[in-house]
Amino acid sequence: MEKKNIAIIGLGLMGGSLALRLHEKKLASVLTGVDTNPAHARIAEEMELVDRVVPLEEAVADADVVVLSVPVNVIAELLPRVLDRVNRQIVIDLGSTKGEIVRTVDNHPRRGRYVAAHPMWGTEYSGPAAAVRTAFENKALILCNTADSDADAVDWTRLMFRKIGMHILEMEAVAHDLHAAYVSHISHITSFALANTVLEKEKEENTIFEMASSGFESTVRLAKSHPAMWVPIFRQNRENVLDVLNEHISQLKKFRSSLEKENWGYLEELIQNANGIRRILG
Amino acid sequence: MEKKNIAIIGLGLMGGSLALRLHEKKLASVLTGVDTNPAHARIAEEMELVDRVVPLEEAVADADVVVLSVPVNVIAELLPRVLDRVNRQIVIDLGSTKGEIVRTVDNHPRRGRYVAAHPMWGTEYSGPAAAVRTAFENKALILCNTADSDADAVDWTRLMFRKIGMHILEMEAVAHDLHAAYVSHISHITSFALANTVLEKEKEENTIFEMASSGFESTVRLAKSHPAMWVPIFRQNRENVLDVLNEHISQLKKFRSSLEKENWGYLEELIQNANGIRRILG
Repeated sequence: MEKKNIAIIGLGLMGGSLALRLHEKKLASVLTGVDTNPAHARIAEEMELVDRVVPLEEAVADADVVVLSVPVNVIAELLPRVLDRVNRQIVIDLGSTKGEIVRTVDNHPRRGRYVAAHPMWGTEYSGPAAAVRTAFENKALILCNTADSDADAVDWTRLMFRKIGMHILEMEAVAHDLHAAYVSHISHITSFALANTVLEKEKEENTIFEMASSGFESTVRLAKSHPAMWVPIFRQNRENVLDVLNEHISQLKKFRSSLEKENWGYLEELIQNANGIRRILG
Repeated sequence: MEKKNIAIIGLGLMGGSLALRLHEKKLASVLTGVDTNPAHARIAEEMELVDRVVPLEEAVADADVVVLSVPVNVIAELLPRVLDRVNRQIVIDLGSTKGEIVRTVDNHPRRGRYVAAHPMWGTEYSGPAAAVRTAFENKALILCNTADSDADAVDWTRLMFRKIGMHILEMEAVAHDLHAAYVSHISHITSFALANTVLEKEKEENTIFEMASSGFESTVRLAKSHPAMWVPIFRQNRENVLDVLNEHISQLKKFRSSLEKENWGYLEELIQNANGIRRILG
């Protein structure tokens, strides 16, 4: 696989982790970074995540590949501007939503140079210091609407993400956003709400801190996630998230009803049904 | 620490894991097991979790220490019967609820021999084959109502759990059940309900299976937990769980309202507030 000049726009958790993986797999001839946050840019340079940090225009002009790893509202704003400056380059975004983002460039004359991607990997932390050396490994990468991208751009993107350990799924952006609401977005809402439940009602934070088990930690850890990333995701995927959230509230009400009525047979049924998740989680 | 003859009643995840730890730390002169499920008894013998499996009466008569690691409804039923057969022995239960269990022996003439304990460790799996060699390590053990237990029984229990890597907290059973509703029981309800949400609405189970990220897995993995363990917990801690569940539903409705009204400032506030969980999780 020929090495390329790769520019990463946004040196946070995702961009920083991708930089680590590209270094390790020696996939970049030059790795440049762009970040409007001077603190993040400095940390990324100190960590040697990228060879150098440059302004957006310079990075795009020099690159063979441009990766957008910024919050989805910023992707929606930047993507058409980046495509305006592109001819031969491949442009890839890593956003957690896809519908609104692909629509921003539907009629762009360089639409073919763009590949819509969503790596199903992340943590609850943000910024370049949170970058993880084993990121993306054995996780799924979703590619969307590949029929609208040039074949060479899709082929290189598939190859690059395979090299860093991902397996590739393809689907339409509309289907992606529906599924993402189930396998990712709703988990964040329940975690945020669970954190607020505990913080609202439980005043003995020290006791909780000392008691907290791995079960508690695993259900609320996502609540540490940054609003600058998540508000735009919920905003772009509002309708799907609302549908799933409504269903989730009605499922919780079934548990409440079984407790209120002391209907233990019904509670058992609800739990047995939930055990069916083993089919999905393995 | 003098080795003791220890009987473990219930060779499931908890009892089996405790057996592994007692072996490793060489804390038992003899380790006997009791299990009414013949398959579990056989697996426990094959795995050499215990030296032998015997009937309850024989195990209690021979033991210095009796550990009850069965579902909380079975503990509530067994504990008075075991105390009836005890003189010098120490009896410890590992139940996830404490209020109803301690009440069953409040006026028992041998109440002093009993120590109420709850190790804040578990997994979503059950049965002896799920036993974990590193169980309990660096986790909290809650001891309740120790003023009602004989000093020698409490001292030995503290020492034993410290030897297997736990740190000890003490609180009243009533306070325990309130806190446990927050740090453990509600997490299981949200996980069960989240699993049911996905199973109800998302018909492409294969797609979800392939897409599932670590975030999804961590919020729903508890939904694999066994109803035979959890129905009795929710039943014994019904009032606390209902309180927390009501609060959780109203917190989720705030997220729904922010999405319905497209009030992104409010959504950001809700998430920022949830980020406060960092104070608790570290």
